[in-house]
Parts: sequence; structure tokens; C-alpha cells
Amino acid sequence: MKLNIAVLAGDGIGPEVTAQAIKTLNAVAEVYHHTFTFKEALAGAIAIDETGDPLPQETLDLCLEYDAVLFGAIGDPKYDNDPSAKVRPEQGLLKLRKSLGLYTNIRPIKAYPTLIDKSPLKRDRIEGTDLTIYRELTGGIYFGEKKLNKEGTIASDLCEYSEKEIERIAHLAFKAARSRKKKLTLVDKANVLETSRLWRKIVTNIGKSYEDVELDYLFVDNAAMQLILNPSQFDVILTENMFGDIISDEGSVIGGSIGLLASASVGDENAMFEPIHGSFPQAKGKNIANPVASILSAAMLLEHFGLNEEAKAINKAVDKSLELNIVTTDLNPDSQYGTEQVGDFIADYI
Amino acid sequence: MKLNIAVLAGDGIGPEVTAQAIKTLNAVAEVYHHTFTFKEALAGAIAIDETGDPLPQETLDLCLEYDAVLFGAIGDPKYDNDPSAKVRPEQGLLKLRKSLGLYTNIRPIKAYPTLIDKSPLKRDRIEGTDLTIYRELTGGIYFGEKKLNKEGTIASDLCEYSEKEIERIAHLAFKAARSRKKKLTLVDKANVLETSRLWRKIVTNIGKSYEDVELDYLFVDNAAMQLILNPSQFDVILTENMFGDIISDEGSVIGGSIGLLASASVGDENAMFEPIHGSFPQAKGKNIANPVASILSAAMLLEHFGLNEEAKAINKAVDKSLELNIVTTDLNPDSQYGTEQVGDFIADYI
Ligand SMILES: CC(C)[C@H](C(=O)O)[C@@H](O)C(=O)O
Ligand SMILES: CC(C)[C@H](C(=O)O)[C@@H](O)C(=O)O
Repeated sequence: MKLNIAVLAGDGIGPEVTAQAIKTLNAVAEVYHHTFTFKEALAGAIAIDETGDPLPQETLDLCLEYDAVLFGAIGDPKYDNDPSAKVRPEQGLLKLRKSLGLYTNIRPIKAYPTLIDKSPLKRDRIEGTDLTIYRELTGGIYFGEKKLNKEGTIASDLCEYSEKEIERIAHLAFKAARSRKKKLTLVDKANVLETSRLWRKIVTNIGKSYEDVELDYLFVDNAAMQLILNPSQFDVILTENMFGDIISDEGSVIGGSIGLLASASVGDENAMFEPIHGSFPQAKGKNIANPVASILSAAMLLEHFGLNEEAKAINKAVDKSLELNIVTTDLNPDSQYGTEQVGDFIADYI
Repeated sequence: MKLNIAVLAGDGIGPEVTAQAIKTLNAVAEVYHHTFTFKEALAGAIAIDETGDPLPQETLDLCLEYDAVLFGAIGDPKYDNDPSAKVRPEQGLLKLRKSLGLYTNIRPIKAYPTLIDKSPLKRDRIEGTDLTIYRELTGGIYFGEKKLNKEGTIASDLCEYSEKEIERIAHLAFKAARSRKKKLTLVDKANVLETSRLWRKIVTNIGKSYEDVELDYLFVDNAAMQLILNPSQFDVILTENMFGDIISDEGSVIGGSIGLLASASVGDENAMFEPIHGSFPQAKGKNIANPVASILSAAMLLEHFGLNEEAKAINKAVDKSLELNIVTTDLNPDSQYGTEQVGDFIADYI
């Protein structure tokens, strides 16, 4: 298979972890006789520094033209505490999601047996956890109208959802549940929010055509508790953009390291793959960042194009690295292995 | 001291746990020679059943006239999955918060040494945790304009904040931090939301007059992780209404039981005290609900009126009950003690 992959490595540790994902994909291409073509483009703080725009038109055009996007991480602390900054790296990411129509963000969360003792949660609470979060990614309060009055004393953000926006992701989530443990949990705040009530109505209706999938509902505050108290109760969690942001980052602690968590953002025409962790600027250039999340994102990319065997090969190589303790220091403080070395091992193993 | 206390026991286990709080307050009144007068009023699903209104005018008038409100819990599953219900118990609670001007919700979270092993989190992660969440309670997306188009296909909720709304709670939170470990963490989503950027600007400014308090900032997704990874890093967390709802329920798992967590909701003229747990209808009338959260809410009530010694007496009695394992079955599955018996012990001990 021929795949053209746009690489947006971004800021902080983005470039170094993405390099390991590319290395891994190159190994896959060699072994399985595929042709993967990579082309890099600017995004995030580095794009602002070089062009003034967190998502230059050139980058967007490349992403639209290519088959998939491999994304690193973006964000730089110099923008975070400056509420008056007009241009921010995150705008680039949000615009990219919107322009590519990536309305579904998929985040699998698993308790790896070899890592279970790294988790802040007790073993018996997390054993058997294997859930996946379907987060709506191009609607809600992220993209609704934002206002600030002239005096700078009143601000607002509008959270809006339409039937169509809810339906399309709901179908994807039900289908995923169908191919998994056949349970879908809608997380909302229907006791307070009008948008949540619309979600509940529509998802309930759609549920009728997926009779083999058990549908239940949790208020987001309760979900935030249940995810820690008893994560193995979940199969597929479906939720709106803002709740998904919070819940999926919260869920990332279960596995013991956010450095292992990959995600796919998909739409009808485009797809992007990125680690969940951020740009982690403190670790930049130190060869200590965990490349596994980025490498597993590459595996999700392959799966997206039906290359399941290839994806499995990556997953197996990652499992092996964990088993042999060939991991970065976030997983083993005494480790001698850095970002590069873990990437090398995984690529070689393939 | 004379105190007139309005009692809104509400739904589910509300009445039975509130009865234990009243019992405890009566014991305090006797020992310390105070006069506490209680008057009950309807709120929640039970008020809908009896009057059609989740917060009848009579109830509101009583709350406005009396010195404080002791609240149980509200909510009934028959309303949760009916997105078209016009009247819901939660509306009563929200209207009460708004009408009484209870703009600050205070939720202390502690790892009780005697209970540390009940927590889903490992001991070394939670030891020393003693944080308190200041959640804005009468603004934001809870109270902004809600819309649903005629066709029922587009819904929206507006999240709005003004300078004044942010300032008043920020001062309370800074003062609390000053009297505690001198650290304040603002939780927001300033990289995406206009309202969060307003929060950040105003809180940063106010921080300049509390130079002895260290101020830091966390995005809500990161906060949801940090709260589990390393809860003892926090002292006072300040956040807006929706984030506070999620974060504080999430934080409730740290201590090992939501049945222990109390809260105070205060404004300039009124104050209300309630357990964090909900109405838990499955447990209603079974004498198994944990009354401690409600009893500790009564202690927060006393503190609010400067009766610190009396509040301490309650806290000590609760500690003793935990130490002697005189607890409900949520804390000890083999326990012989029910809601009543735990309440009796605590009241007698005082
Ligand atoms: C960087 C930020 C805008 C983004 C989000 O909130 O969606 C990130 O937290 C994520 O979850 O991908
Ligand atoms: C019942 C509900 C409306 C309420 C809220 O969301 O504020 C509850 O979850 C709480 O936190 O007190």
C-alpha cells in the first residue's frame, strides 16, 4: 500500500517522539513492502515563531492533500499565562481539527499487565480495564461563539450542538461497541444542560438500531468518580468535546503513564494520529520523553487503513519493550534507555 | 447562640442522613447551651410530587428568613432519562443556590488516616492530602441562556462570567489559602475558553494583593490527572461552576468514601450545608446510608457561625467512630451498624 503521511511534529518533545514513530513506520514499510512517504510541515508555537500563524495555509493544504496526519504535540508555556495573546499554538490544533472535519477523537485506555503496579490506582481496581473514549472533537464550547465586552469585564463561550453533529459520532461509537464488549456509556450533564438533553435524546434514539449494544448514561460528575472507582465497568464511553477532554485525561492515569496513550481523530475524509501527552517542554531535547504513545498512534494509523497485521506487529513490539523493561525513565527511574533507544528497539523488533 | 435552621431533607437517603445531623446538632446544643431551632420544608422530587414545584415559594421564604439551611439530597431517577421533562428536582437546587446568592461552594477533601486503605488510590499517593475546592456556584454554563430550536435539532448553553462574579469568590479562596498552606491553584481552560481567560486575568490581578499566597494555574484536563497522580500537591483549588462539579466529584474518591464528604455553600447573606453524595435512591429507607457527610456538614455550619469548638467536637466524634469502626457498610462490609446507630454513637460521644 502507498500512504502519504503529513508529519506535524510541533513543539516541545513533539519532534523527538514523532521521529520514533516514523522510524517504526519505516520498519513496517520495509518488512511488509509498503511505501510510506512522509512530508513535514509546521504547526504550533514553532509555526508562530517562523510564520506568525500556528497553522500556516501550506500546512493545512498538505494535510488536506495527504492520506493521513501524524501529529506530535503543540503548546508552549510562554502563551499559557498571557490571557491577552492574540495568537496561540492551540488555535492551530483546533483549526486543523475543524478544517479536516475530524469530528471523532478515539482514545483507548488499557491497563497493561506489565505496568499495572505503576498506576496510582490499586491493582484490583484497574485489572481488566480496556475502554475507549469517543470524544466529539469539532463542536461544543470549543467552537461556539466567544465574546468579551469592550471593558474586558464580561466574557462568554457558547456551547452548541446539532443533531447531525451528535448522530455521526454516535454511529461510530455504537459500531465500535458492537465490535467490542457491546456496552456504550453516554456521559453528559442532562440534569443541567440543554445540549446534554439533546445528546441523550438523539443517542437514545440511535441506540434502538443497535439493539445488541447495551446503552447507559452517566452524569459527567459521576463518571469522573466511576472512572477511578471502577474503570473496568466501561467499554465505550461517548461524550461531547469538553467533557471528553477532561474525562480522557483523567482516564489516562489508569494505565500508569500518559506516555503510552495514543489517539486517533477521524472524520469522513481525513484522519490524524497523535499521542495524548502534550508538548512537555521541560523534557525537550533531553532524550527522556516516552515515544510509545507516538508509536502506538502510528499503529492506530495503520489500523485505520486496514493494515491490521502491521498494527499488531507494532503493538507486539511495544509489549515486548515493556516486558523487557526497555522503557524510558517515566516507567523505570533507573532506566538506561532514552527516547531514541526505545524507538530503535521497537523498530528493530519489527 | 440562637440559630434558626431550615431543613431541606429532600429525596432518597436525604431524610435519613439529615436526621442524624439534626441529632448531632441537638447534642451540641445541649452540651454547649445553644438554642437551635429546626423547621422542615419541601425540596426536590418530593416537592414536585406534593406541590408540582421542586422549590415551593414557602421553602424559599423559609430559607431566606432563617440563618442557615441544612440540605439533604435531591434527585430521582424517574427524571434523569426523560429529556423532555419540564420540571426536574435539580431545578429546585439550582434556583435555591441562585436565590440565596450562594456563589461559593466549599468542598474539603482529606485522606483520613484510618480509611486510607479504602481508597482506590495507593497509600503513598494520597497520604497527606488535605485540600479544599472553591467552586463558583451561581454562574457559568449552569445559569447561562439555554436554547432549543423549534425542531428540537439544535441546542445550546451559554457559559458567561463577569468580573464581579469572579472577584468575590477569588477573595474568599485567597483568604482560605492564607489561613491554610498558602497555595492557590486556579483550574481553567484558558487555552480554549474566553471565560477562562477572564478568570485567569482577574485572579492573577487579585493575587497581587495576597503576596503571601503562591498562585498557580492548571488546565482542567491536566488538573483531572494531577488530582489522582499527586493530590497532596494541592491546597486550595479555585474553579468555575462546571469544572468544579467534575473535579470535586472526582476528588471525592481520594478519601475512600463519598459518604464522608461535606460541603458548604455560602454567599454574602445566606449559607447552606450539604453532603456531597446524591440522593442514592437504591439505599433509601434501608438504614445503610452513611450519615457522616451530613453530620460533617453540620460541623461546617457551626464553623460558619464561629462555633469552632463545637465543630471540633463533631469532628472528634466522627474521628472516634472511624477509629472504633462504628461505620456503615460502605466502609466496612461486615458492619453491624446502620445510619441510625452511627448517628447515635456520634451524638452520644458529644
Ligand atoms: C491543547 C488543547 C487545545 C487540546 C484540547 O483541549 O482539545 C488538548 O488538551 C487535547 O485534549 O488534545
Ligand atoms: C444535582 C446537580 C444539579 C448538582 C450540580 O451539578 O451542581 C450536583 O451534582 C452537585 O454537585 O451539587
